[in-house]
Amino acid sequence: MSTAASANSTAAEAALKLGRQARQASRILMSAPDALKSRALLAMADLIQENREALQAANAKDLEAARNNGLDSALVERLKLSDKALETMMAGLRQIAAMPDPVGSQSGSTLRPNGMRVGQMRVPLGVIGIIYESRPNVTIDAAALCLKSGNAAILRGGSEAFHSNQALAQVIQAGLEAAGLPSHAIQVAGTTDRALVGELVTLTDYIDVIIPRGGKNLIARLAAEAKVPLLKHLDGNCHVYVDEFADLDKANNIAFNAKTYRYGICGTMETLLVHQNIAAAFLPALAQRLIAHGVELRGCERAQALVADMKPATEADWETEYLAPILAVRIVDDMDSAIEHIHRWSSGHTESIVTENLAKATRFQREVDSSSVYINLPTCFADGFEYGLGAEIGISTNRLHARGPVGLEGLTTYKWVLTGDGQLRG
Amino acid sequence: MSTAASANSTAAEAALKLGRQARQASRILMSAPDALKSRALLAMADLIQENREALQAANAKDLEAARNNGLDSALVERLKLSDKALETMMAGLRQIAAMPDPVGSQSGSTLRPNGMRVGQMRVPLGVIGIIYESRPNVTIDAAALCLKSGNAAILRGGSEAFHSNQALAQVIQAGLEAAGLPSHAIQVAGTTDRALVGELVTLTDYIDVIIPRGGKNLIARLAAEAKVPLLKHLDGNCHVYVDEFADLDKANNIAFNAKTYRYGICGTMETLLVHQNIAAAFLPALAQRLIAHGVELRGCERAQALVADMKPATEADWETEYLAPILAVRIVDDMDSAIEHIHRWSSGHTESIVTENLAKATRFQREVDSSSVYINLPTCFADGFEYGLGAEIGISTNRLHARGPVGLEGLTTYKWVLTGDGQLRG
Repeated sequence: MSTAASANSTAAEAALKLGRQARQASRILMSAPDALKSRALLAMADLIQENREALQAANAKDLEAARNNGLDSALVERLKLSDKALETMMAGLRQIAAMPDPVGSQSGSTLRPNGMRVGQMRVPLGVIGIIYESRPNVTIDAAALCLKSGNAAILRGGSEAFHSNQALAQVIQAGLEAAGLPSHAIQVAGTTDRALVGELVTLTDYIDVIIPRGGKNLIARLAAEAKVPLLKHLDGNCHVYVDEFADLDKANNIAFNAKTYRYGICGTMETLLVHQNIAAAFLPALAQRLIAHGVELRGCERAQALVADMKPATEADWETEYLAPILAVRIVDDMDSAIEHIHRWSSGHTESIVTENLAKATRFQREVDSSSVYINLPTCFADGFEYGLGAEIGISTNRLHARGPVGLEGLTTYKWVLTGDGQLRG
Repeated sequence: MSTAASANSTAAEAALKLGRQARQASRILMSAPDALKSRALLAMADLIQENREALQAANAKDLEAARNNGLDSALVERLKLSDKALETMMAGLRQIAAMPDPVGSQSGSTLRPNGMRVGQMRVPLGVIGIIYESRPNVTIDAAALCLKSGNAAILRGGSEAFHSNQALAQVIQAGLEAAGLPSHAIQVAGTTDRALVGELVTLTDYIDVIIPRGGKNLIARLAAEAKVPLLKHLDGNCHVYVDEFADLDKANNIAFNAKTYRYGICGTMETLLVHQNIAAAFLPALAQRLIAHGVELRGCERAQALVADMKPATEADWETEYLAPILAVRIVDDMDSAIEHIHRWSSGHTESIVTENLAKATRFQREVDSSSVYINLPTCFADGFEYGLGAEIGISTNRLHARGPVGLEGLTTYKWVLTGDGQLRG
């Protein structure tokens, strides 16, 4: 057997073992009472406090390796388990512990003519795989959300955070043990071998869904290989459309906030669409403000005619998620052209209209086919906390199952529950 | 280019064309008012009435080919567009037209602390592919359900019903035209070339979900090839567990009905599990009734000891969906053993407990991880009409998205709709 083939067969065995153990633990977790799940989460928070030094010592190994590998300082900073980062983890665990358990709830039922009662009960998805890069806080966040929603989880983090993740895995294990929950409820892969990921995404008998968190390249590669369904988004190519009936001050603030709140998040506006009738009154002032803030503008010909310091935009600009201080700008004839542009180029993440006209606002929200559609709000609100979900495992642009920000409920599904007294069919 | 390669590239082009046309039509259908969708469905019903002779003439070609190919008479019967079959189609179209439109509805919203309103709006899935065998009524049923839920559909039926399906396609086209809806809203593939199916299931940019209807072999093959998500079930290996606290008369009727209502439907009981404490009082009478009805019994050793005319069951019996007058029987020590058997062997379709004990009924319904879990009802109730969904496109044992019987709502998803007045983030 060649070395590569042998590595693959080892990875296949390792994945199968993780999958089988997770499925077994999932049977118990599915009907575990909330008291136990919350107890485990609170214990994990306490254990982070108690093991602060050990966690930071493990993290120091990752930080040193990162610096030696020439990782840029912003990335090194994201890796760091500072006191503040640990506090945030603990707060997150306690907050998730306090949230209502989504599992077991029923939101109504119907009584059929024959007297049988038909309802739906919310149940966990089963086994969730999380494949993620760099930041070790995902290990705790993902573990907490999966556990609270009654799912077993297999966590496979990136090599940059290997030592940190292994140390956090011990905290997780001790927390599960303190609550008497199965130790395989949350498994952190003990290797960063790439072949393992390839095996996990094909394990349809043992993993019900995989949530990838990381760069577009990672996610595109997983999507190509996966047989297990992925809950994912590739791009956040988000649009703000400023309508002819917009309040121009409001529009200026919304567009500025949508672009500059943070350049690197998926809800950032990447293309601004402006109705031709208000372009001259609206665009120059906003452009000046954005340029003064260091944002580079790339526009269509009509936009360029209104703003001196604007490069020409090409089709590549319409489809690019910059994640950077760059904005594409296009002047459109009317709202239909704006919607057409969005349906042609958007990644289906988040779009917003700015208008004071009720009919146009309503029609935009109805017709635009993205996972979130706003009226008079910046697209950077695309976040589970902002939506009131309490927490977020990620954002999905899938059409099946959960869309947009995914919280605890998105990690559950339902089963039909029918209760009768001997009714027969036929 | 070899003939096979050329056939594949032709199929790829044909699939792409269907997909592009469907996506374009879907943009219009997504926000088409219910009045138009219903008008199209009612027009189709009228057109079936008017074109009865032409439809039956086309069907006669399929029937003749089927007889010439030696298709067994039961299958030929299922192919037949008798007057009664056409009446059923028309009634189905009118009933679906009259159902409430699931699209556009919102079931509540929350007001966030900053004053922005967060809600979810129900929207169509987009483009649905239906791949099905034999019965031409699926062409009309699937078209009606997809259209009513605002989805564009690509229908690819089996070669046995080719002429019937092409004739029904004309009815569908004329109905869409009568309502002024895009003619590509529902496309019936004009070929039964197998390569087309292989292309359709990989068309992730143009098809959002594929619903296969047919035998297990068809569905397993599609699942292996598909990149587009499938809404499906492979098997209906359903269980009834008769608890020690069951009312034995009720249990007898439920078990008899679950097995004999119809042998060929996916909700039919395939294995009966009986608590050891009531096995001697319960099993012999039921066995006698089933055997008198022509059902063959295969049991574990303990069951065989109670019933003379019972063959031994092997592991193959626990995992088989017979779809025939055969029943596997196992005596279990207690409810936990029954649940363990179900989790080991069930296909996750439908299971039922028969008991008068509230705590056991509740625990069974909570812990059994199938898409439908019943109390004191035969598993043969697994059907969208029986659940009150009004119609059914199929049954899903997937964990993501719709589970169990899938009606109109299962053909939709949601988008987040946020409305503000210039709130900013940060």
